[in-house]
Amino acid sequence: MSTNRQLTAAMFIGVRGDGIISFGSGQPDLPPPKEVYDILPDYNGFRYGLIQGQVNLREALAKQYPRSTADSFVITNGASEALDLALRAIAWMQKKKGGRKPKCLLCRPYYYSYLPLVEYAGFEPVFTDLVEGRIVYEDFERKVRDCKVVLINSPSNPTGRVEAIDTLRQIEKISEDLGIYVLSDEVYKDLIYVRENYLLKGLHVVTINSFSKTFGMTGLRVGYLWSLDNELVKTVIEMKSHTSMNTSIIAQEMACAATTVPKSYIDGQIRIWEERRDIIYRGMIDLGLDLWKPEGAFYVLPKIENPRDFVWDMFHEYKVITYLGEWFGAPDRVRFSYALDADKIEEGLDRVGRYLKKRSRH
Amino acid sequence: MSTNRQLTAAMFIGVRGDGIISFGSGQPDLPPPKEVYDILPDYNGFRYGLIQGQVNLREALAKQYPRSTADSFVITNGASEALDLALRAIAWMQKKKGGRKPKCLLCRPYYYSYLPLVEYAGFEPVFTDLVEGRIVYEDFERKVRDCKVVLINSPSNPTGRVEAIDTLRQIEKISEDLGIYVLSDEVYKDLIYVRENYLLKGLHVVTINSFSKTFGMTGLRVGYLWSLDNELVKTVIEMKSHTSMNTSIIAQEMACAATTVPKSYIDGQIRIWEERRDIIYRGMIDLGLDLWKPEGAFYVLPKIENPRDFVWDMFHEYKVITYLGEWFGAPDRVRFSYALDADKIEEGLDRVGRYLKKRSRH
Repeated sequence: MSTNRQLTAAMFIGVRGDGIISFGSGQPDLPPPKEVYDILPDYNGFRYGLIQGQVNLREALAKQYPRSTADSFVITNGASEALDLALRAIAWMQKKKGGRKPKCLLCRPYYYSYLPLVEYAGFEPVFTDLVEGRIVYEDFERKVRDCKVVLINSPSNPTGRVEAIDTLRQIEKISEDLGIYVLSDEVYKDLIYVRENYLLKGLHVVTINSFSKTFGMTGLRVGYLWSLDNELVKTVIEMKSHTSMNTSIIAQEMACAATTVPKSYIDGQIRIWEERRDIIYRGMIDLGLDLWKPEGAFYVLPKIENPRDFVWDMFHEYKVITYLGEWFGAPDRVRFSYALDADKIEEGLDRVGRYLKKRSRH
Repeated sequence: MSTNRQLTAAMFIGVRGDGIISFGSGQPDLPPPKEVYDILPDYNGFRYGLIQGQVNLREALAKQYPRSTADSFVITNGASEALDLALRAIAWMQKKKGGRKPKCLLCRPYYYSYLPLVEYAGFEPVFTDLVEGRIVYEDFERKVRDCKVVLINSPSNPTGRVEAIDTLRQIEKISEDLGIYVLSDEVYKDLIYVRENYLLKGLHVVTINSFSKTFGMTGLRVGYLWSLDNELVKTVIEMKSHTSMNTSIIAQEMACAATTVPKSYIDGQIRIWEERRDIIYRGMIDLGLDLWKPEGAFYVLPKIENPRDFVWDMFHEYKVITYLGEWFGAPDRVRFSYALDADKIEEGLDRVGRYLKKRSRH
């Protein structure tokens, strides 16, 4: 492929258009529950909110997390800012203690923002390679001993896999024993097809979550971090008072309304996601692709030959957006988000099939 | 004062309560124009927006800035995020070029977030001291030659002063000649009592602005940066795609509605601000305080003896929030925001007078 075929995920986020089928960004097409909009007609807020986040929202969250109060949460501009601030805060605390450049362990393939966030914050990245989309604890343990932080993402974007609970317990233990921070990105916690979510616990655990995926509120940007480590929470609040101040108060109020939605809403959503998962997984197997069966989230990560040509041509010739596996540390693969309705998934798979067939003839 | 009297601005932001008079955060008490709320009843957005910001909002802004298109803007979570991203992006570009730790020039007293933002981004801060709240160009020039970036803030928070246009032109010239980035924080551009705003121009100028102060929308968090430097704008967008993604789409839509408000609205606001300015300036002179006459924004920065005791006691004994000058690089002063109505300003001044009188008796 030619060198001017520069592709980045940032180019595609928010792009929509006639005839485009986007397997690109992790954007649920299902709208949020109506409760989220019910607060709007009478809304009249405008003042600065508390940097840590609105009290009503943090109190609602505290009921969902064990041994928590509203003080254990910081509301952020999506999970992205929660990750960014957590990493920056840990690096900052480390710097103040005069430490060397700290290391951060990443499980590869990883969510594409992890590597830049880790580097922006000044960490040296270290990698443990997943096997069949799961952590191999022996390799993980050997590498994590040298790190200040590790990023965990189960269910995983981009693999769609869910970690074994035994592995997560081993990670809790080593975090506790060695004082290593575990940033556990659980934004897909409500989208698991194989078991209930396992919430990582411990004094050095920082859980990252958001309203984006569960409630289809991606563009509104409300996420949060939860931690029982007071020093970390305080440092994050201090940093956020300079880097962005409070998260938009109207978006927080919408998120607060989402916390009142009955559990049956989420159960209904997951049935839709599972049906789509079955369509794309079966469709890709039928196309002869090599992929792992997704257990959560809404991604598949099949192996594709010449993935750069594939992503470029699918977009420019077939109006299908897909994401290069190399952005996720998986250079022989392509990521598909199946956050779109069944008809579109089938139409998209059809275009992929036509392209692969045409390519195999050359 | 005792060492456990720890005070930070972050503690006070968003704090309200019965009987509290806050001269603390720069929070206009005047609500936004009604147009801002008119979009809410029918609002139904939820999807990711473009990282750079909504097209309608950027197009509306492009009409306000010379030689601009929608591509020259990035919409951010308030001016805070615009500053943070601009600094991080410049530091990142510098790092990629393999440069030494870059320096950033600050005009002291400075807005209290500048120093932490500069340090978080990895710059070494360098200071030029203002005289009567204004830049002394000789000192400025000598120090800026060694810097990669300089932060300018006119009208200034915390001094309330406005730079001479001649000085701003000299700064434009040296930025152009030496390729030094000028981050010009103009969030108070619509609140100047002495002249029209002078918009800094040049290829290395990054203008920081927001809807917070002009339209009373602080808590909604919509700011932006404007720059004709494509490489910088691209780097900021790439970073923001990882650190927070799009700015909340509903808040952007509210900001877009604010751009339709007639100029007479802003003229009406400034008359209110000027009246308040006169009350607090006159009141402080009557109390015998030493301060500069504010020319813009809504702050005064009088000299106060034992400022730490003052801020602590005023809050705990008189329910009056003020900010320590030392947070702004002015350790012998205290900052008062006069963003509250005339009655409250007078009541607050009365409490300050009573405290100072009591203190002078001891």
